[in-house]
Amino acid sequence: MKFVAEALSLSEPAAKRLHRRGILKSAFIPHPFFSDIDEAYLLEKKFGKYEEGTFIASSHNRSYIARGFPKIKRTLVLEECIKKHFKGCDVAVEEKINGYNVRILKIGENIYAVTRRGYICPYTTERARELINKEFFNDFPDYMLCCEAAGLESPHVQKEIYGKRLEFYLFDIRNTRTNEALSVEKKIKIAEEYNLRLAEVFGFWCCEELLSNVIKIIKRLNREGREGIVMKDINMKRLSVKYTTSYCNCSDLNYAFRYFNDIGRDFMLTRAVREGFQSYEIDSEETRKERYLRIGKAIVDGILSSIDNVIEEGKLYERSKLRFRNKEVMELFIKHMKKLARVNFEYLGLDNEGYHVLFMEKQVISTADRIKNLISGGFW
Amino acid sequence: MKFVAEALSLSEPAAKRLHRRGILKSAFIPHPFFSDIDEAYLLEKKFGKYEEGTFIASSHNRSYIARGFPKIKRTLVLEECIKKHFKGCDVAVEEKINGYNVRILKIGENIYAVTRRGYICPYTTERARELINKEFFNDFPDYMLCCEAAGLESPHVQKEIYGKRLEFYLFDIRNTRTNEALSVEKKIKIAEEYNLRLAEVFGFWCCEELLSNVIKIIKRLNREGREGIVMKDINMKRLSVKYTTSYCNCSDLNYAFRYFNDIGRDFMLTRAVREGFQSYEIDSEETRKERYLRIGKAIVDGILSSIDNVIEEGKLYERSKLRFRNKEVMELFIKHMKKLARVNFEYLGLDNEGYHVLFMEKQVISTADRIKNLISGGFW
Repeated sequence: MKFVAEALSLSEPAAKRLHRRGILKSAFIPHPFFSDIDEAYLLEKKFGKYEEGTFIASSHNRSYIARGFPKIKRTLVLEECIKKHFKGCDVAVEEKINGYNVRILKIGENIYAVTRRGYICPYTTERARELINKEFFNDFPDYMLCCEAAGLESPHVQKEIYGKRLEFYLFDIRNTRTNEALSVEKKIKIAEEYNLRLAEVFGFWCCEELLSNVIKIIKRLNREGREGIVMKDINMKRLSVKYTTSYCNCSDLNYAFRYFNDIGRDFMLTRAVREGFQSYEIDSEETRKERYLRIGKAIVDGILSSIDNVIEEGKLYERSKLRFRNKEVMELFIKHMKKLARVNFEYLGLDNEGYHVLFMEKQVISTADRIKNLISGGFW
Repeated sequence: MKFVAEALSLSEPAAKRLHRRGILKSAFIPHPFFSDIDEAYLLEKKFGKYEEGTFIASSHNRSYIARGFPKIKRTLVLEECIKKHFKGCDVAVEEKINGYNVRILKIGENIYAVTRRGYICPYTTERARELINKEFFNDFPDYMLCCEAAGLESPHVQKEIYGKRLEFYLFDIRNTRTNEALSVEKKIKIAEEYNLRLAEVFGFWCCEELLSNVIKIIKRLNREGREGIVMKDINMKRLSVKYTTSYCNCSDLNYAFRYFNDIGRDFMLTRAVREGFQSYEIDSEETRKERYLRIGKAIVDGILSSIDNVIEEGKLYERSKLRFRNKEVMELFIKHMKKLARVNFEYLGLDNEGYHVLFMEKQVISTADRIKNLISGGFW
């Protein structure tokens, strides 16, 4: 607990109290794959300046911290938001990738991938060790790579548009202790130098020219089935702001209504409201009608596909197929996931490339039960 | 409290405890218009066999009770529900009216209209005294008329389809003390005899012939912009079951998204899910596409109309215009409503027919604030 106190600039008794209150949580499964780490904790909630998901580890009597990734604010109305938040500013527009947020840092001799909530994910870590050039950390030991992990082989968000294998899309490089981000320009330079895959940067515009360009980009991304954008002050001194495409909102709605009894009600509401505000800002009569259709289809087809699944298979689930280099890492991942969710696994053996293939199924219980009851004439 | 104890078959200390616990609530504003009543209470929650909304009054040392109206169960899948719940039964199909539920009974010398929650509503009571034939209560002193109060001049649900003035649509006649309902046939006979307006009875069918007829009725009601149906065992011995049209579900969605930050999230979810299950049961490819459009339009246009209102007037509200015969009743109604909700009133004077016209405006604060923030570039 001493290293935690040190990392958070607290007294040791204060750190212990935080632990007792459940705000500070032990989040570590000792394993040879995590050989650099002696102990690790995470913050379940924001504490002082430390963000929720802040990760703290000790390695050979040294303390490491990876500050939680700060929430990116969302706007529903581009024009007013741009005027208000980016006045006098040069702004970079980058792609918002639909995956899961990971912070990649080096602890001791190895790379670790920490999830949004502050857990080290064995699967993501193994993949990061395959893909991320370690040289970066030798030159920038105080920094972490903030990436979106995306692809079909994802344990969380399976999106084929980003390819089959899980890839890392770098969007911020931040100081692990202060959470300060490098400028967009510097980030791009580093990405080139160390051969890191960037979340696409669409361009740089002054505040006055931003709106028309953003609208063009959003329309294109929407056609291409991509998620949206993040607008960033090129010096990373102001809040970054995100905005999503109708494609993304409706794809979320479809997902939410597939699992309508398990997903938070706010999730559905916010997606629908985003569509309303986007319609207000950019629709013509014709595109409005297309939007009506898209929203209705997302909702109804989501419910219908779940009814079909329940009728055909008697259950509902989310499935993914993951591949591991190392069988021990796979077993560690299974242990890791079982701590977090109700998941079933099936080991499918080795594929042609020598990867261990793991089939993962999350049961969606409450919606399945509700559907079973309703289609057999039950009440709601 | 003695009359309450008597009405609920409790000891007096038990009734007092119920009051202290807030389950039994005093719900009465003494007034000459309520001259028959000395005291009145309601049940805020179900207690034993007594339904939520049960109303208890004393009048000249006599206790009166009006049992709370029992919740009508809803099905989302007609076919299985009909098989399961109405096997071997003759079933009446009646119109479900979109208004507010009132129980009309006679206390002492006069008629009183009690709302779902168990309050005497002065406005509804005055209108009931205009419209309801008191003779019924002389012949059936132990019964109450369970009606839907509907029309444009409604303090709760303004629907022009039911005409301008508030009317009462009788759907059940129940014993005030046992809550047992008269058979459908008997109800129809009584309605004819005492000239009471019935919620339309579409017909009677045996279980085997019910489904096809119900689907025909639902399709017609949907085209006509009406709410739905209630299926009833003609002897009123089984649970009644309701089912709504897509028109109604979408009209609810439109309403919900107009006030998206004030309406419960469950309200939106359930309407959308009803549409999904209706699509599963009755849609062709063509009607499914119409449904997509209808749902999307309801949601988006709801949000857009509220954005427009906030931009034009800086606020959001629900408005209704009510008319009173008696100015004192109007003032009593204002007092009654102010206890229940945040409402503004404006007295508009007498109309040609000698009615006092009252303008009522319920402010919708949270959604208006949210929209103001968003359209000025705020985050969500």
